[in-house]
Amino acid sequence: MRWEDLDREACSVARTLSVVGDRWTLLVLRECFLGTRRFEEFEQRLGIARHVLADRLKKLTEADVLTKVAYQERPRREEYRLSEKGRDLYPVMMTLAQWGDKHMAGPEGPPLLRVHNACTHVMEGVLVCSDCGEPLAARDVSVKAGPGAAEATLPAAAKRA
Amino acid sequence: MRWEDLDREACSVARTLSVVGDRWTLLVLRECFLGTRRFEEFEQRLGIARHVLADRLKKLTEADVLTKVAYQERPRREEYRLSEKGRDLYPVMMTLAQWGDKHMAGPEGPPLLRVHNACTHVMEGVLVCSDCGEPLAARDVSVKAGPGAAEATLPAAAKRA
Repeated sequence: MRWEDLDREACSVARTLSVVGDRWTLLVLRECFLGTRRFEEFEQRLGIARHVLADRLKKLTEADVLTKVAYQERPRREEYRLSEKGRDLYPVMMTLAQWGDKHMAGPEGPPLLRVHNACTHVMEGVLVCSDCGEPLAARDVSVKAGPGAAEATLPAAAKRA
Repeated sequence: MRWEDLDREACSVARTLSVVGDRWTLLVLRECFLGTRRFEEFEQRLGIARHVLADRLKKLTEADVLTKVAYQERPRREEYRLSEKGRDLYPVMMTLAQWGDKHMAGPEGPPLLRVHNACTHVMEGVLVCSDCGEPLAARDVSVKAGPGAAEATLPAAAKRA
């Protein structure tokens, strides 16, 4: 399988990775969620080469994950904002960060804490079932073929189900 | 910033990506969560070059995300199983897949459906606040400096908080 074919594979993980499956892309998105919007800010905070940054911002804009918005007209200057599709990546970013907090933080503890604006408490995001509300771990979930399944690539777990 | 330095950056997203921030690695992990365990199965299902697969499995084993377990003694044959640290990546995998289901599936719909074993319903994972239980979107969450924060790399959003 080639990377260029990833978005055609009948797998939602593979399709998502065809858009965000690159470390610089995910770090650019981390910055977006932390409020970074302008080219020079991304460059400075990430220490990323300008041509790499320009490439990743272009791809994210083409994928409608980011939207270019003018913040000044003469001379025209643009910044990058998360689209609704981009903001939907928040659970991915939060779960990546939380795994790092748990398994990769040094003895000094996690670098950032997250506060829920509504209840004002320091908290974690917990993945729960949309139907019954109970927390979900891998062993709690089974898969079965959906309407877009391709029989050839269906995992054994889904064929058994 | 160089990739080799990612795990030393004071950011849990960057540290996590130093372990899983590679598309093949994430696809190998997808397979693990779908029940794939043996080298030849990974190879066949992913269409991945053997040396690339061997490299990714070695790195995941060294990072204690996968554990090598003998399933036959003479000749000795080993398979790869998720460790507890590896299983903790399930929320990352599920949120990646769900974003793909929502934004990358064709008109035919998502390839796989997820069933919660306990309640038996087809469902989605929803990220909720560990304190109050309300669903979380990006705009509902603020960050502030944690015990492991490095002032130099703290985002503006956390300095304001």
